[in-house]
Amino acid sequence: MTRRITLGAGQLGPISKDESRAAVVERLIALLHQAHHAGVDLLAFPELALTTFFPRWYTEDLCGHDHYYEKEMPNAATQPLFDEALRLKIGFSLGYAELTPDGHRYNTTILVERDGSIVGRYRKVHIPGHEEDEALRPFQHLERRYFEESSEGFNVHRCFDGIVGMATCNDRRWPETYREMGLQGVEVILIGYNTPIFYAPDPGQNALAGFHNQLVMQAGAYQNGTWVIGVAKGGIEEGVESLAQSSIIAPSGQVVAQAVSNGDELVSVIADLDWCANYKETLFNFARYRRPEAYQRISNQKGVMLP
Amino acid sequence: MTRRITLGAGQLGPISKDESRAAVVERLIALLHQAHHAGVDLLAFPELALTTFFPRWYTEDLCGHDHYYEKEMPNAATQPLFDEALRLKIGFSLGYAELTPDGHRYNTTILVERDGSIVGRYRKVHIPGHEEDEALRPFQHLERRYFEESSEGFNVHRCFDGIVGMATCNDRRWPETYREMGLQGVEVILIGYNTPIFYAPDPGQNALAGFHNQLVMQAGAYQNGTWVIGVAKGGIEEGVESLAQSSIIAPSGQVVAQAVSNGDELVSVIADLDWCANYKETLFNFARYRRPEAYQRISNQKGVMLP
Repeated sequence: MTRRITLGAGQLGPISKDESRAAVVERLIALLHQAHHAGVDLLAFPELALTTFFPRWYTEDLCGHDHYYEKEMPNAATQPLFDEALRLKIGFSLGYAELTPDGHRYNTTILVERDGSIVGRYRKVHIPGHEEDEALRPFQHLERRYFEESSEGFNVHRCFDGIVGMATCNDRRWPETYREMGLQGVEVILIGYNTPIFYAPDPGQNALAGFHNQLVMQAGAYQNGTWVIGVAKGGIEEGVESLAQSSIIAPSGQVVAQAVSNGDELVSVIADLDWCANYKETLFNFARYRRPEAYQRISNQKGVMLP
Repeated sequence: MTRRITLGAGQLGPISKDESRAAVVERLIALLHQAHHAGVDLLAFPELALTTFFPRWYTEDLCGHDHYYEKEMPNAATQPLFDEALRLKIGFSLGYAELTPDGHRYNTTILVERDGSIVGRYRKVHIPGHEEDEALRPFQHLERRYFEESSEGFNVHRCFDGIVGMATCNDRRWPETYREMGLQGVEVILIGYNTPIFYAPDPGQNALAGFHNQLVMQAGAYQNGTWVIGVAKGGIEEGVESLAQSSIIAPSGQVVAQAVSNGDELVSVIADLDWCANYKETLFNFARYRRPEAYQRISNQKGVMLP
């Protein structure tokens, strides 16, 4: 049996500080057109895909970055993207900064089906970086200032003939992310990211950025028998170099598609969702082999407890 | 700061069906001598290191394989290994089939310090394979017939100037294995394995055996900031080819030592246990970044629950 769907990763190059929403949406639509040409059914866009990665700058007032947030989705600026996707019958996921009516700020991604309906919304669970001004860093990573940790966890959605879930950037480094969705039968996980190559707390890791990026997604894919799309906003954005290397990973853990540039680029693959069963029904038959009684620390403990 | 310890993986080639304990122990001691020459402080031996991998054959009576089990450890056959290790002041881990006085069967590994004291014992948590005769397979994998799942979980031990844990073979494919120990501050995880390359439920995975082996250990090492040793009984044993490729993996996820043969072979590395902090105190600062409230399925659910 096969359930084929063409998955796409719509990588973005840098978005400048003053780039308008309209200009960005034009770039997203251009990727959508490439995706149409490639027969893509589901196109993943990056994390915070509508603006520059603003958490690199400190503002004393939290509202200082509010112009980078969206108050509704879709909205006037993004409606053309939704309209064109519907016209072309391509589903997509889109990351953006969400400012809710009651003043909460989330790092959010929505999932839109080919018929234009919003079938899922994910708010980032693992918020990395720091909360306060650390002016000694060459650039900051103030996600913990500008976004609240979501309390909605990891969920999956029945769509695209399968079961689809989302995660964002730092989430991908935590095996719990994939497993929570694996325990719901996930078959495709969409992960957008903005990953500066320079990591201030330990610059020795810089040269391993690409390796670490793929290592965790490949392991997560294999260990849960799921397709994974990792899609970057890459390149040198406002002086900060971020990892590109958007990729699509099969349930075997193999990288089956890979971006080569640091800019706007589409990669795609014809994915058989039934390939997941090769892993889910054998080696990773959870009902047969998992031992939750041995996993009690994972859900009940936060930090390390030494022996 | 550095806390240097030389880690070794004492890979074994095949052990034949009729090979005596004495002959095997001689081979283990030969590896110990190589380890001494290389300055090894802690030498990991494989899973079920004293005999052929007997779960490949079915016996109607469970006791049919009892001659492959140990009733005590150490015992007369293995005492020379313990004595020599003590003389050379090398610690080691050793996998064996354990038959307890009250008739329980476990896939067990012990950890012995340089002063000869047994500082840890681990009984395999994830038991793979099948329970009943499946004669159509070219060879069987009856671990679930010959071993009980341990209820002792994953623990760590203060020894070798650090915090050391153990896992076995199939355990290494589950991220929970590493995380349970990561939550106890583990700095070195010792994993012995017997991994047939041919996987009957899905032979398409055979060619990925080496890739999958390292993928999961590299991810587990990185995601928990720990050294990992994967040590095989490899080569063609009683007609069944098993993966060798014993390796030592740094907290970065990098493979830093790798066996090249399918036989008895030592690989070793000078490991700085303080290197773990580069990951544990930054990216993977669990107390700061983990979200157990979002991980509730992991400890509370066994199999998949579809949306």
